[in-house]
Amino acid sequence: MYSLKEIFERVQVIFEHERFIFDPKELYEPIDYTLRLGGKRLRPALLLTVNQMMGGDIRQAEGAALGIETFHNFTLLHDDIMDKSPLRRGKPTVWTQWNANTAILSGDTMYAMAWRYFLRTDHPNLRGILNCFNETAIEVCEGQQYDMNFESSTDVTLDRYIMMICKKTAVLLAGAMKIGAMYAGCRDTDLEHIYNCGINMGLAFQIQDDLLDSYGNQATFGKPIGQDIRDNKKTYMILKALELSPSSDRETIKAIYDNPHHNEKSVSEVINLYDRLCVKDSAEKEVARLMNAAETELHEIKASDVMKQPLIDMIDMLIGRKR
Amino acid sequence: MYSLKEIFERVQVIFEHERFIFDPKELYEPIDYTLRLGGKRLRPALLLTVNQMMGGDIRQAEGAALGIETFHNFTLLHDDIMDKSPLRRGKPTVWTQWNANTAILSGDTMYAMAWRYFLRTDHPNLRGILNCFNETAIEVCEGQQYDMNFESSTDVTLDRYIMMICKKTAVLLAGAMKIGAMYAGCRDTDLEHIYNCGINMGLAFQIQDDLLDSYGNQATFGKPIGQDIRDNKKTYMILKALELSPSSDRETIKAIYDNPHHNEKSVSEVINLYDRLCVKDSAEKEVARLMNAAETELHEIKASDVMKQPLIDMIDMLIGRKR
Repeated sequence: MYSLKEIFERVQVIFEHERFIFDPKELYEPIDYTLRLGGKRLRPALLLTVNQMMGGDIRQAEGAALGIETFHNFTLLHDDIMDKSPLRRGKPTVWTQWNANTAILSGDTMYAMAWRYFLRTDHPNLRGILNCFNETAIEVCEGQQYDMNFESSTDVTLDRYIMMICKKTAVLLAGAMKIGAMYAGCRDTDLEHIYNCGINMGLAFQIQDDLLDSYGNQATFGKPIGQDIRDNKKTYMILKALELSPSSDRETIKAIYDNPHHNEKSVSEVINLYDRLCVKDSAEKEVARLMNAAETELHEIKASDVMKQPLIDMIDMLIGRKR
Repeated sequence: MYSLKEIFERVQVIFEHERFIFDPKELYEPIDYTLRLGGKRLRPALLLTVNQMMGGDIRQAEGAALGIETFHNFTLLHDDIMDKSPLRRGKPTVWTQWNANTAILSGDTMYAMAWRYFLRTDHPNLRGILNCFNETAIEVCEGQQYDMNFESSTDVTLDRYIMMICKKTAVLLAGAMKIGAMYAGCRDTDLEHIYNCGINMGLAFQIQDDLLDSYGNQATFGKPIGQDIRDNKKTYMILKALELSPSSDRETIKAIYDNPHHNEKSVSEVINLYDRLCVKDSAEKEVARLMNAAETELHEIKASDVMKQPLIDMIDMLIGRKR
């Protein structure tokens, strides 16, 4: 049995041994660049963790692990074009390092490569597994569209925001976990608990990220504090602040937030507003509630506590919790 | 048994009955627009034609037919962004009618929808079928990259051009045919003949298209005559002209062709050059040779002449041949 640390190490080894460059090199060099940038490799690790938890032989699920991470990186590549992001993991994005056309076509090819990985290993329920991957992929695209719609919308509610981050972020974590379980031949009721566990984890993870944008430690967060505010991004924080305010204050708050030229002072003003409305507290409570819900789902799954330990460790890691 | 005409009608009906709009509408409206623009629906018709020829029940292959056409339209959507094409089938392209971001994301979603169609119907060899689709998809991406590389290259040979159109165009026709045969449970040797038949058809079709750009009938060709010349596109015609010229003339010919501001006179000058070098004759002979090769492959396939008739009709239709 592998510990969580060993699973992450295994994922690293799988990626190091994989070849991503073929002809024409103009197409594959950006793919190799992207897939070697690293990142946490959370999704393949989750997939293998759940596969092991449900009694699978993780070697059988390694193709799917490669596939889910390749798909995730494809979505980032295309998102970076759409969002005009200059950097990804501290390095120039493909559309800036090469150009938008290369980023489009290399992304499309990565998506096809994800399928190649998924098709690498046969399984009695391969069609079910591929269906799960594909329906997840469609939801991720829908989530990105909602995210773009919300940028220009003035009446996004917290409920709609949760729906969006569910599609854009949570379903891929949940899908990776479900696919790992399916490779282990897991039965339907457990699959449902595993999927729901993943959705709750994914939502908690995103809300925690939104929280840390205002209240995180610059040194450990990895992104500049207040960037979501400077980008006028709809986040859990601002939408909760609006929900907690009397309706007479909302237009004023929106005007303060949607400042196109935020500076240190105006960012502080937004965070002061969060302080006054106790938004940090609301967010922390919501993260805790979601993590409890994830653990309740995990509790229902028919597997031994020993086998569940790596996933419990993953949940702790995701929200930076120490026991 | 369906005639070729009836197969094309069947394909129309399948597309008319399919629903392409879901939420969010910003994502799916461009998909619906694209998939309802029409076009010849050649690839799904080929898939069903070969499926029937090999004894399949074409209803079992309809999901794959929808999938192959949806994939093809996805590639056009992304190609139109990369090539900055304003029109497709006489209508504004998605990136002009909406914007590039929408065209990227709706395209990605169409690719996932293609997979949904492919996964709709189970088959004992589903993994083999999906592998064939996916490897074809990767080759199509590679073909598009070679096509873009060739735009800025000054030493493209005819051989390299044939390799490129093989990947960009021929493999999808051949793949559609092979998938149709696989759904019918066709055996390996026949699959090889069917695939090779499709490759020859696809190459002939593209070279014929290159020929008609210079020598076609404006009324029936559907595109303005000489457009490839005005776009300085590497085509069979110019590359054959260079091959047929003494090496001392080649730089002059390249300079005439690569005119960034072609007018009626300079386009005529290129066509006169083709006339002098008998490039039309070479192209016609190459199309005939490839179609003969396609028919030789077809001859080898274990199916009755009656069952082969719709595919023979398709071959005739593709190069506008009347018997």
